[in-house]
Amino acid sequence: MAKSRFEYVKSYELPDILLPGTYIIARVDGRGFHKFSDAHSFEKPNDRRALNLMNHAAGCVMEDLKDVICAFGESDEYSFLIRKSSKLYNRRRSKINSTIVSIFTASYVFYWPKFFPNTPLQSPPSFDGRVVLYPSAREIRDYFAWRQADTHINNLYNTAFWALIQHGGLSTTEANKALQGTDSKDKNEILYSRFNINYNNLDSIFRKGTILVRRPIEPPQELTIPNESSGVNAKPVDETRPQVKPKRQEQYEGVTGELDILHEDIIKDGFWNARPWLLAT
Amino acid sequence: MAKSRFEYVKSYELPDILLPGTYIIARVDGRGFHKFSDAHSFEKPNDRRALNLMNHAAGCVMEDLKDVICAFGESDEYSFLIRKSSKLYNRRRSKINSTIVSIFTASYVFYWPKFFPNTPLQSPPSFDGRVVLYPSAREIRDYFAWRQADTHINNLYNTAFWALIQHGGLSTTEANKALQGTDSKDKNEILYSRFNINYNNLDSIFRKGTILVRRPIEPPQELTIPNESSGVNAKPVDETRPQVKPKRQEQYEGVTGELDILHEDIIKDGFWNARPWLLAT
Amino acid sequence: MAKSRFEYVKSYELPDILLPGTYIIARVDGRGFHKFSDAHSFEKPNDRRALNLMNHAAGCVMEDLKDVICAFGESDEYSFLIRKSSKLYNRRRSKINSTIVSIFTASYVFYWPKFFPNTPLQSPPSFDGRVVLYPSAREIRDYFAWRQADTHINNLYNTAFWALIQHGGLSTTEANKALQGTDSKDKNEILYSRFNINYNNLDSIFRKGTILVRRPIEPPQELTIPNESSGVNAKPVDETRPQVKPKRQEQYEGVTGELDILHEDIIKDGFWNARPWLLAT
Amino acid sequence: MAKSRFEYVKSYELPDILLPGTYIIARVDGRGFHKFSDAHSFEKPNDRRALNLMNHAAGCVMEDLKDVICAFGESDEYSFLIRKSSKLYNRRRSKINSTIVSIFTASYVFYWPKFFPNTPLQSPPSFDGRVVLYPSAREIRDYFAWRQADTHINNLYNTAFWALIQHGGLSTTEANKALQGTDSKDKNEILYSRFNINYNNLDSIFRKGTILVRRPIEPPQELTIPNESSGVNAKPVDETRPQVKPKRQEQYEGVTGELDILHEDIIKDGFWNARPWLLAT
Repeated sequence: MAKSRFEYVKSYELPDILLPGTYIIARVDGRGFHKFSDAHSFEKPNDRRALNLMNHAAGCVMEDLKDVICAFGESDEYSFLIRKSSKLYNRRRSKINSTIVSIFTASYVFYWPKFFPNTPLQSPPSFDGRVVLYPSAREIRDYFAWRQADTHINNLYNTAFWALIQHGGLSTTEANKALQGTDSKDKNEILYSRFNINYNNLDSIFRKGTILVRRPIEPPQELTIPNESSGVNAKPVDETRPQVKPKRQEQYEGVTGELDILHEDIIKDGFWNARPWLLAT
Repeated sequence: MAKSRFEYVKSYELPDILLPGTYIIARVDGRGFHKFSDAHSFEKPNDRRALNLMNHAAGCVMEDLKDVICAFGESDEYSFLIRKSSKLYNRRRSKINSTIVSIFTASYVFYWPKFFPNTPLQSPPSFDGRVVLYPSAREIRDYFAWRQADTHINNLYNTAFWALIQHGGLSTTEANKALQGTDSKDKNEILYSRFNINYNNLDSIFRKGTILVRRPIEPPQELTIPNESSGVNAKPVDETRPQVKPKRQEQYEGVTGELDILHEDIIKDGFWNARPWLLAT
Repeated sequence: MAKSRFEYVKSYELPDILLPGTYIIARVDGRGFHKFSDAHSFEKPNDRRALNLMNHAAGCVMEDLKDVICAFGESDEYSFLIRKSSKLYNRRRSKINSTIVSIFTASYVFYWPKFFPNTPLQSPPSFDGRVVLYPSAREIRDYFAWRQADTHINNLYNTAFWALIQHGGLSTTEANKALQGTDSKDKNEILYSRFNINYNNLDSIFRKGTILVRRPIEPPQELTIPNESSGVNAKPVDETRPQVKPKRQEQYEGVTGELDILHEDIIKDGFWNARPWLLAT
Repeated sequence: MAKSRFEYVKSYELPDILLPGTYIIARVDGRGFHKFSDAHSFEKPNDRRALNLMNHAAGCVMEDLKDVICAFGESDEYSFLIRKSSKLYNRRRSKINSTIVSIFTASYVFYWPKFFPNTPLQSPPSFDGRVVLYPSAREIRDYFAWRQADTHINNLYNTAFWALIQHGGLSTTEANKALQGTDSKDKNEILYSRFNINYNNLDSIFRKGTILVRRPIEPPQELTIPNESSGVNAKPVDETRPQVKPKRQEQYEGVTGELDILHEDIIKDGFWNARPWLLAT
């Protein structure tokens, strides 16, 4: 097509390529969600519908962008891990950041009625986004640990805060004051002794946040049956034949398969050891 | 609140401050809108409802972020001008970019039913965004000229293309072929001689795109009349004394007032001369 | 030539292009010059040989890189202005920054014996460098005003400080204390009343720093005269007709011609009005 | 000190912090060294004096900046490795880049007479510099392998090229042509069969380039004597007592100790395995 003499302005658009071989974290955060949650009467301290909607929107991001191989969400924020070998959008920072924010936002608004069937959306909520690079697996582990530790800290506080208000009859100012200077143990104690709430029995979605991660497709059953066999007549497993599953998992890169929605510990080794591909490619 | 030992990962988030004193353009573009427009049976070559929705979403951005003092949209893209003195989000690139994309996306999805009352939204559409800096007013003028020239080029092509198909009975392949190598004059001629379409009579929203810009508030008449003259014994207006309105406009910075929706030429001086504040602050 | 399988590491070198159409300032600063000046017995408060060497090294930068059209130096620092249209090294930040620092450093060491014939250089001095962008002429004017104002502030202080020590017999601690809380007027007064020094009579190189700028070549007289008149009956030159020289100067871009070494005011309009090309291209 | 109203221009200097936890490579390259080497009659294909001067200048960089823990040089270029945990200049890119280039340049000019006692330096040579980040040890290994493979490729070519000219009587054009399309084996064959040069017997400084790396201080002799003991009556080493040396090396970070100048293989594991600290901290 014909080009205009104004085309030169395009040259002011400068490259913003992310360092290759580096893990990419994209985090979206709700803008003004305190007000937004009040306007839509979110339950306190946690609104399960709102969390489910966040999780669904995050799932839409992972559905669209396969190189997002893991995500963690709490409250009004979500962090996405893009594998270090990713060439998504040629690793352009703005493109990656804006696309993730937009898919997330669009999905949040689009699926609102599904999660809040009786609460009409009053105004379009929005999110901001940022992209942060991490050179090593250790830092990725610590990043997610940071977010899950934050989830715990915030949720324990909020649980105690709203218990004091909802069950203790305190005002918000009084509740704030009552919690000033308390540590985790104090808050647990307040919950237990005054409101008979055992914090550790609360639903894990509130205490641990939500992890989204793909599940590698299981090897076809015919192949695995011998491994499962037991009982008197079971043939001994042929140790010499190549094992399908481990080999597959070794090659599995986390970009295919169904999404799992988990509310488990992401700080200890278990989660990561079970999914070595997350930090490998 | 208590801090975790993982907090150090926050230090990997590096500053991305935009050069001060520089005009900021943020542009959002539809992702996969060819497919999206087919899925929702957009009218060809232009769907007025879709353009109005784009314009409305852009208006929401300007409503939320006052430092966005002007915008231009066509097809599935919108460009926003942030004034050069802006301190919006401390001029953080990712924050500005992601917030604009998110407000735009949220508004597009949220207001869809208002503009497409009979066409349910089938899936959440998304946009990407980028931020480009321009040091001088000249380049901003040329940036918007570039986009409007592009609007003209694309619309003339599309108008001819769809006329050949809708009225000429050609297939898309045949229409493409028929237009290969043609210049503007040829396309105008095809439209006029074969389909009796005078391109210049098409609605200006299609030919010129849409400009959003705030209208400075006029000094309220009731208030100014008394100053000018009051009652029987009113003194004649002193023509030499400084006029209020020009002085106000001089100080007007474009961040207040109602939005005007225009479909006029943005390449020539007229539009800009009438709004000196756009490039001044 | 053959390529190795390690070549991929080159892709980690990311672009660092400076925004087009923007003025580029590169500033070099001496590293540890307090100690360096002591080791080489620089005269206090100013060592003319050291300043001349700085100026010569800066001249070498301008000799090598023609797009550096102006420079300002004081003490152990030098600022270089690269014209806004420059395509020097494709506007790569690191390349421009490192090259200027390196030429400056090499010249400083190489020409040391010429300026310090009786003081052998004891160790290799070094400099750091940075590159800053400015979108408009106003900011460039203010940048150089900032450096010259700084020159004045520092030099007045140092002049008073060393007068108190060299002529007043104070220790450095006492001199520091004596000047605490004084303003410009106070320092001028101390210099005049106690040491009979009229600050304004000091050499301008100390008070104003040094400007390096190219002088446009005058149109050679022999060549222009014949055009103006020919033969015995030539009419006198018409003084009112447009002069050739201004037209040439309008086109002059500052990249050719001999270097002028000036110690004049760079804050007021005079310097800049006499050289419109500096901020024009 | 008093501040001027121009001070605001300082705010245009934007942060350029390098990603934490990432290996930093700074590479300096000679500017116009082809011409420079001709002007100073460098021996072909390699000038040992010039290489020694390069090595000395690189040593000065490492002497000044302790976080530079390893360097590799060939021809007119030198690469410096800054350990990934370094906080040198708060990891400011321009500061690190320019300082290294400046120290290197200053040292090269300053020490020239020591390495070229009979060849006066005719003009100040200069270098450019760049900084590249690598997230993992693997990439650092490959970076240095890339440079050493390059050394081999270039040196084999140059050795054959200059043999054809110096001993074979060819012109540069003819030599170029003679080598076109040849691979390593061909060049080795030309050198051996025509000039009786066994490439592998050439000095390793030419074939392998130069590595600079610090040598950890040996544990005090009293402690090591038992390990060193030999002869008839030597007691067997007590395997159970804590070994001092390995423990120390584990903690050694590469920033202290004398510089070793090596010309050995840096591609295979040996060099790196012997110095685990290089990639550890």
